Amino acid sequence: MRIMEATDYVPREELERRWARVRRFMDCDSLIVLQNVDQYYLTGTLQTGVLWFPREGEPLLAVRKSFERAKTESAVRNLVPLKTYSELPALIPNPGETIGFELDVLPVAAYQQVSKYFSKAKIVDGSMALRRARAVKTLYEIECIRRAARQLDTMFLDVPKQLHEGLAEYELAARIEYVLRMAGHQGFTRVRRFNMEMHYGAVSFAETAAYPHAFDGPVGVRGLYAAVPMMGSRRVLKRNEPVMIDICGGYAGYIADGSRTYSVGPVSQQMRDTHQYILELNSWIEDQLRPGNVPSQIYQDVLDRVAKTAFAAHFMGAGENQVRFVAHSVGLELDEIPVIAPKFDAPLEPGVVLAVEPKVFYPGLGGVGVENTYVITDHACERLTTSPMEIYTV
Amino acid sequence: MRIMEATDYVPREELERRWARVRRFMDCDSLIVLQNVDQYYLTGTLQTGVLWFPREGEPLLAVRKSFERAKTESAVRNLVPLKTYSELPALIPNPGETIGFELDVLPVAAYQQVSKYFSKAKIVDGSMALRRARAVKTLYEIECIRRAARQLDTMFLDVPKQLHEGLAEYELAARIEYVLRMAGHQGFTRVRRFNMEMHYGAVSFAETAAYPHAFDGPVGVRGLYAAVPMMGSRRVLKRNEPVMIDICGGYAGYIADGSRTYSVGPVSQQMRDTHQYILELNSWIEDQLRPGNVPSQIYQDVLDRVAKTAFAAHFMGAGENQVRFVAHSVGLELDEIPVIAPKFDAPLEPGVVLAVEPKVFYPGLGGVGVENTYVITDHACERLTTSPMEIYTV
Repeated sequence: MRIMEATDYVPREELERRWARVRRFMDCDSLIVLQNVDQYYLTGTLQTGVLWFPREGEPLLAVRKSFERAKTESAVRNLVPLKTYSELPALIPNPGETIGFELDVLPVAAYQQVSKYFSKAKIVDGSMALRRARAVKTLYEIECIRRAARQLDTMFLDVPKQLHEGLAEYELAARIEYVLRMAGHQGFTRVRRFNMEMHYGAVSFAETAAYPHAFDGPVGVRGLYAAVPMMGSRRVLKRNEPVMIDICGGYAGYIADGSRTYSVGPVSQQMRDTHQYILELNSWIEDQLRPGNVPSQIYQDVLDRVAKTAFAAHFMGAGENQVRFVAHSVGLELDEIPVIAPKFDAPLEPGVVLAVEPKVFYPGLGGVGVENTYVITDHACERLTTSPMEIYTV
Repeated sequence: MRIMEATDYVPREELERRWARVRRFMDCDSLIVLQNVDQYYLTGTLQTGVLWFPREGEPLLAVRKSFERAKTESAVRNLVPLKTYSELPALIPNPGETIGFELDVLPVAAYQQVSKYFSKAKIVDGSMALRRARAVKTLYEIECIRRAARQLDTMFLDVPKQLHEGLAEYELAARIEYVLRMAGHQGFTRVRRFNMEMHYGAVSFAETAAYPHAFDGPVGVRGLYAAVPMMGSRRVLKRNEPVMIDICGGYAGYIADGSRTYSVGPVSQQMRDTHQYILELNSWIEDQLRPGNVPSQIYQDVLDRVAKTAFAAHFMGAGENQVRFVAHSVGLELDEIPVIAPKFDAPLEPGVVLAVEPKVFYPGLGGVGVENTYVITDHACERLTTSPMEIYTV
């Protein structure tokens, strides 16, 4: 594959690969795709408008704004300007008997505005076809995620130079964001689930990493304000405290997710022992990441292993923060499938990209652990976040 | 009013003021509020769960995650943990005959999951009650927006020190974000409308400020990637080019919005003349910002004035970017009401906060102009973004 440059647009053949994947999972005659991220996946441009995606043949992208930009960026051949939704019946005369909409993300009012023009069709939830297609990444997508992971490595190696007693979480967050942005980070992280917001992630010192929050992730985070509970708070760093950094890279829309642990002066023996255990556990999980292995089984095996240790009560989050997964997929969104969690019974395939994040958090003390982004290869996996996983002590 | 500190939570009396405002606009017996921002407005905490907001009496906040954090942050008295939505009928035995949901932001699937437990009630769109209530800010909210505006002034005055030939848009964006974050910026900007994303705003050199994009704003922006068309691209700065910076401040959830124009070496006479005209126009608009004046009339008067000049074809956006407003409200979200635009016929009231952004953009050359955040006072308005509005030439 030609190495993509940032100024490149998604090539036609890449779009066609994606179309073939989505069609494999469609149980409807066509999809009406309205969410910007799903549209980007299928067209290579992120405008506002309506994408009609039939089971066969060329899709139609009707663009409200910007039509000019869509023409520049997208390799879709049927590109038309759209003034009002009332033009849709004429633009899409044969939508088929069953139409899928993205019912998981589409607001009720927007759904009603568009679906009324397809009142003869049976409407179904088409979101799982898109999500299942996106679960396995193309080489193009993996290259984007690799570059996002490289941003994380650059940042992880910068952090030790910044750490000192008296540094506030939000100050370290500001520096982390700056380093990432200078390395080409896109600036924020998209999450599909309603009400879930992430910004870049979490910068949590000691007990902050056990602070309860709304996000479905293991790392506690307080943030500067109750209204924006993300990244760092005004909490300042003291010696011998664990610093948990859980941050997303972002390149051309694609996310890599990683965590590293730091301290000024050594952390306690308990924290060191815990981190050592996590590294061994992560190594064991890594060995399971290969085609054919089943996520729900890996998850159960992990829980069984942890259950035999002193870490079980604090594994994957303190108190309410405890989550029921040990890895999640990343791509254009942070919360992609599959997840290494109960009910994910389909075997892993090459091209699945997983952020594996075994961590342990003690209430009042904080936590340790790692997160790495892996891609499943033909026979094993490759770790895309390559920086060392030991606690970085300065 | 006691000056709020960042670590403070929204006081009970402030919540009660907000409840009274929302109740004035409710045309239903109760609201089921599910969006995180609306929940924050009414409860002072941003968790996941269900807020039942009746026309009279204490609201009920049922929290999925984090219940502990909600107890710490919220002055709502009826706080209960929620495991599944199936508990809702028992928790809310008398929802009333008519229930409002936030149909403008609520995804279809989430709506279906929750509304099925209220099948005896008539369901209406309750979002306008929330949006109309939020259109007039309390003193507490204005103080937050004032602090967000102060972040912008700090940043606007830093930019001249950073500008030099060869600087890339994304590098300036990285610096701007760093300066804002160190000044207490919350890190990103919430937009209510589906598919609208903003990050911090736009950093656009010369013709980039006329580059077409999906966002409903006048400033063109390219961004680093087609997938993330926000903030800065790899375009580097040359002498005598206009630099348009349109950025949001963010304090405790509240947004201020501002723009300033810069250059290395003087911009062309055309750009200087245009900017001078914009400053005069802005001064005229400022005089109209007082209680009793009608936004749609102000908008028409602005268009009539501009129509007599050479700037009419390029006013408020190049080509497809041209927008049909000259100011929008800001608060917890960037796209609040009222807007200085057609159809906004209700007179301005004290407490309305408007981001006024007269700007002109020439295709291929870029644009100039200003944006300031104003609060309507008892008899006039106050400008919250106080930094000078001239072109900053270094």
